Amino acid sequence: MRLLLVNANTSQNITEKLAIEARLALPAGWQLSTATGSFGAAVIQTRRDCAIAEHACIEAVEAHLAEQADGCDAVVVGVSLDTGLWALREALNVPVVGLLEASLLTACMVGGRYGLVVMGPKTVPLYRELVERHGLATRLAGIEAIAADALAVHAAPEQFDAALIEACDRLVEGGAECVILVGAVVAGLHRRLQGRVAVPLLDGMACAVTQACGLARLELSKAGPTVPG
Amino acid sequence: MRLLLVNANTSQNITEKLAIEARLALPAGWQLSTATGSFGAAVIQTRRDCAIAEHACIEAVEAHLAEQADGCDAVVVGVSLDTGLWALREALNVPVVGLLEASLLTACMVGGRYGLVVMGPKTVPLYRELVERHGLATRLAGIEAIAADALAVHAAPEQFDAALIEACDRLVEGGAECVILVGAVVAGLHRRLQGRVAVPLLDGMACAVTQACGLARLELSKAGPTVPG
Amino acid sequence: MRLLLVNANTSQNITEKLAIEARLALPAGWQLSTATGSFGAAVIQTRRDCAIAEHACIEAVEAHLAEQADGCDAVVVGVSLDTGLWALREALNVPVVGLLEASLLTACMVGGRYGLVVMGPKTVPLYRELVERHGLATRLAGIEAIAADALAVHAAPEQFDAALIEACDRLVEGGAECVILVGAVVAGLHRRLQGRVAVPLLDGMACAVTQACGLARLELSKAGPTVPG
Amino acid sequence: MRLLLVNANTSQNITEKLAIEARLALPAGWQLSTATGSFGAAVIQTRRDCAIAEHACIEAVEAHLAEQADGCDAVVVGVSLDTGLWALREALNVPVVGLLEASLLTACMVGGRYGLVVMGPKTVPLYRELVERHGLATRLAGIEAIAADALAVHAAPEQFDAALIEACDRLVEGGAECVILVGAVVAGLHRRLQGRVAVPLLDGMACAVTQACGLARLELSKAGPTVPG
Amino acid sequence: MRLLLVNANTSQNITEKLAIEARLALPAGWQLSTATGSFGAAVIQTRRDCAIAEHACIEAVEAHLAEQADGCDAVVVGVSLDTGLWALREALNVPVVGLLEASLLTACMVGGRYGLVVMGPKTVPLYRELVERHGLATRLAGIEAIAADALAVHAAPEQFDAALIEACDRLVEGGAECVILVGAVVAGLHRRLQGRVAVPLLDGMACAVTQACGLARLELSKAGPTVPG
Amino acid sequence: MRLLLVNANTSQNITEKLAIEARLALPAGWQLSTATGSFGAAVIQTRRDCAIAEHACIEAVEAHLAEQADGCDAVVVGVSLDTGLWALREALNVPVVGLLEASLLTACMVGGRYGLVVMGPKTVPLYRELVERHGLATRLAGIEAIAADALAVHAAPEQFDAALIEACDRLVEGGAECVILVGAVVAGLHRRLQGRVAVPLLDGMACAVTQACGLARLELSKAGPTVPG
Repeated sequence: MRLLLVNANTSQNITEKLAIEARLALPAGWQLSTATGSFGAAVIQTRRDCAIAEHACIEAVEAHLAEQADGCDAVVVGVSLDTGLWALREALNVPVVGLLEASLLTACMVGGRYGLVVMGPKTVPLYRELVERHGLATRLAGIEAIAADALAVHAAPEQFDAALIEACDRLVEGGAECVILVGAVVAGLHRRLQGRVAVPLLDGMACAVTQACGLARLELSKAGPTVPG
Repeated sequence: MRLLLVNANTSQNITEKLAIEARLALPAGWQLSTATGSFGAAVIQTRRDCAIAEHACIEAVEAHLAEQADGCDAVVVGVSLDTGLWALREALNVPVVGLLEASLLTACMVGGRYGLVVMGPKTVPLYRELVERHGLATRLAGIEAIAADALAVHAAPEQFDAALIEACDRLVEGGAECVILVGAVVAGLHRRLQGRVAVPLLDGMACAVTQACGLARLELSKAGPTVPG
Repeated sequence: MRLLLVNANTSQNITEKLAIEARLALPAGWQLSTATGSFGAAVIQTRRDCAIAEHACIEAVEAHLAEQADGCDAVVVGVSLDTGLWALREALNVPVVGLLEASLLTACMVGGRYGLVVMGPKTVPLYRELVERHGLATRLAGIEAIAADALAVHAAPEQFDAALIEACDRLVEGGAECVILVGAVVAGLHRRLQGRVAVPLLDGMACAVTQACGLARLELSKAGPTVPG
Repeated sequence: MRLLLVNANTSQNITEKLAIEARLALPAGWQLSTATGSFGAAVIQTRRDCAIAEHACIEAVEAHLAEQADGCDAVVVGVSLDTGLWALREALNVPVVGLLEASLLTACMVGGRYGLVVMGPKTVPLYRELVERHGLATRLAGIEAIAADALAVHAAPEQFDAALIEACDRLVEGGAECVILVGAVVAGLHRRLQGRVAVPLLDGMACAVTQACGLARLELSKAGPTVPG
Repeated sequence: MRLLLVNANTSQNITEKLAIEARLALPAGWQLSTATGSFGAAVIQTRRDCAIAEHACIEAVEAHLAEQADGCDAVVVGVSLDTGLWALREALNVPVVGLLEASLLTACMVGGRYGLVVMGPKTVPLYRELVERHGLATRLAGIEAIAADALAVHAAPEQFDAALIEACDRLVEGGAECVILVGAVVAGLHRRLQGRVAVPLLDGMACAVTQACGLARLELSKAGPTVPG
Repeated sequence: MRLLLVNANTSQNITEKLAIEARLALPAGWQLSTATGSFGAAVIQTRRDCAIAEHACIEAVEAHLAEQADGCDAVVVGVSLDTGLWALREALNVPVVGLLEASLLTACMVGGRYGLVVMGPKTVPLYRELVERHGLATRLAGIEAIAADALAVHAAPEQFDAALIEACDRLVEGGAECVILVGAVVAGLHRRLQGRVAVPLLDGMACAVTQACGLARLELSKAGPTVPG
């Protein structure tokens, strides 16, 4: 079976980084394809970038499927803001799962309340709104932001790790029974940091691949699209 | 002062219909400009159309402003799904107001709970989600949908009016103290129908123009953009 | 057109201070009248004062309208606890808008979540309940109180300003994308302080006058009163 | 010990009717006093009446206590809209309990969700808002209104009873595990109708007297008043 | 009349301690019986203990009633996690009241928002979920936990009291207008500490006995059991 | 890898029926074991039965694991009321998933809002409370109950199917974008009925097995147990 991972921004290297994590989580019998946005921002930085990336995301998936006779059996939207998720879910005949969505739903089976660690304080309202949009705000213990960019991770990993662990500890103090690490920058870091945090760490890509492939196996009927008009 | 009305779909005739209503609501001393989406659906019918229209909406506003040395003092997003609203609000230095948003907020000052009449049952979940996204769900009395298209309005206006009034009556029965007529199809119909409904009827364009021009007069400082990263 | 500003407490000097702010926000073509409570507290200090002020507020408006052949086109209740708002809205044939209500609704069009700065920690529960009563609690980032009275403002304005700015900064830290300055004591201070705060500051009177005059222009039909019994 | 029952409207005969019910619920060792509003509506019919009755209610209690050297040990606000409840609770050193409040809290110990039967459809929004204000909306199964006045009860009691029972049945159908009969008109009717309804019927006065006298026995310390300013 | 106090854990000495508090709150004309769990944990420490204690609680009540010809008129579940409350309420023909439930409902009549002080930080999520389950979360100001066990109370009462008072002060700072002391360890401590806290302190057992005996006096009809299947 | 399916009631034939469905959903490389409650009700009919079944469920799992050197890699609680779920999740070192929980979370990835069809109107409040306890009530479109028992299914399957489909249709009418069939009676019926319903039908066991096995593959760290005291 085939899983399509779509990256809504235009950075091919982010697509590749995400694909590494996706393959680690892929069940036996599945193959991974990837698609990358062909226009918009290299890194989604604003709500405006995000709106344009929704279009790029839809376009990238449709272009990929147009080229491939076999189609795919499930799609993971590989952006932690779940960019284009609802539009693709409506438009396609296969399951579509978002990174944040999948980690929130997985967190619900791990403990009572969950926390989020996000990159940069300015994204906090975006993620809070997204949690509310998914209807899961009553189980949110909190969102902690750390000042970080990809460079900092590579230049001073120990400081970065320390900041990440402090953020996790604050969430645990505030009642989080598991913590979701949010963003491409921290993809896969749960393996390095789990031993230093008191509660389970969740990785968006691992959760999303697991949920998408699980949904595909359920072979649910496709509901008619929700069509305005 | 200048108000820019942007229509996110590509139908120039809808832009013109909306502009007529906008001009009726425009305060003295204001001029109206319009912009229309240059790609995407002629009529927004699906979540996919809506996602693409967000991009078209941003692009149309930016193209308009690039051409006009004087810029504008406020923007009304002339689509009842508030397409592109949050992205434009972040990106621009002037107030941006959506049709549904403005009518919901205005309804809050009219009575306790409000109702929505929308065109077509398939849009009900979209509007319900939008009301929740605006944080105003506790005052929603209900959403009633009527089967309708522009043709039906013109071909059998009496039947259309009767269906609309029945929908309003059901909402009033369910506790609505005012009713918002949602969609370009019903723009301006409140004038024809108000006398036959027991509670105030609100028109999205009239509300949005009033709110946008009022906000511009408040001369609020522009907060820094909400930037992921 | 005529806007009536009613002050529910008995302090004529507060009425005059509020009227100055109201006139600054009044659109062209409007005249301002004022009315002041004839019984109850000079400054509303308790829930008991507030309950009595509701009666005084209704009485003051009705006495004013009984004397004036021309009536008025809109009413602003010039008390930040929205004293008497719902009763007057039911009783009158013109729009009635409250200070807190108008600033909350305006804040919704400015950013995602808003904060409140109120005078004195004991009013925090009153304002929290009022935000909930308006159905807008999901967008409340927080309420910060500062110890303050009118004297302190005049005696040590720099300290007062510093306390106010610190309160705003705490709200911004907690996710507020705009801040409402609440209370007659701080009326108009947004002009002095805006440059020192990172997000837009909203003034209740400016918002309320703008909303009341905007509503009057919409010429909404008057719904029948909500009558128990 | 002394329980003061205050009726916020000016009808002495309603005070007397309520006092009969109150005495039936009074524990051993308690005496009942009553007070009646001296201004405002004979029957509270509008939000405006209700606002004025808050003042009358406070005034009636304070006048009563000024005349009586011994004071009282608890107060029941004998109006189903809990008129003046929060102001009196703040102002007095003894427990103050409202009719609707007490029946809602009692209902919470009877079953999962409760329903309300109210007199007249126009009061439905007032009671819905009051339930929300008490923070108990998540357990509200529904509110059913019946067209009724005191005359109808006396003129055609069988029809009135039938309408009341039908309303109860609709609430039970909608998930109510007990039903509160709301309003002076139906005070005491639970005795006549309980046998014909599948779930427990709650009477506001019986609940309020029981809660007020129980609270008095707890001898809770008096918290300082919540004072704006 | 007879009140049955059931302790769901197997510690006879806790039953006796609780019975002392229960007798202090018992109205004239009531007698107290007690029952103690015959299997499960001596002190409920985990969710697993709690689940088993539900069974023990039901079994203890049914064994007690099987032995006593006269039955009982009300039951208090003497565990602050309200263990077995809903099952017993369904199964018995008399009122059943829980310790936390009764103190939450009583707190609603004391002030706007209430706080909880609980023993040990690991119980915080359990109590938060329980408050939500009772549908009373909107009035929760916060939960503060202190590290404490029965020994610490006896060994260093002054330090324990200081920690308890600090926890209360934090809750008052956060908006609590009364504080509930939760757990058998602190039963009766409100008498010793009330003078040092600014808001009323509530004791679960005093509230529960008062509510249970009050409910019994209301003589509500027994609704049919809620039966799956 | 080993999945343990525990049936909290004492009916071995229900365990076997559930095991058939579980095996259909089991991924390659997994083996199924089962455990059945050794005391309590043959069919859970009341809240009392349910409380006792929690104990039986814990006991059955612990007895099973005590006998088996190899333990298990995940547990599915095979009762649609998620009996014992939270206690087992705390007590065990492997993922534990409930039938209702898994189908609710899966439904979140299928569409906007979901509906439930349950067996018997008396279970409606139990399921409503359970949805709230999972924190997923904002996406609940409604719960429809049908009068049904196992006999009726076998005796008159066409009538049963018709009733089930009508219930689904009412939910779709009310906004459900997928429907969960709840209860052992309807296990596997989605295969027979999917073609006659407009939206996807979800089966609890298929969802739970998929989620439990997916969680096991994520190899999340085990958080420390939530321990009262």
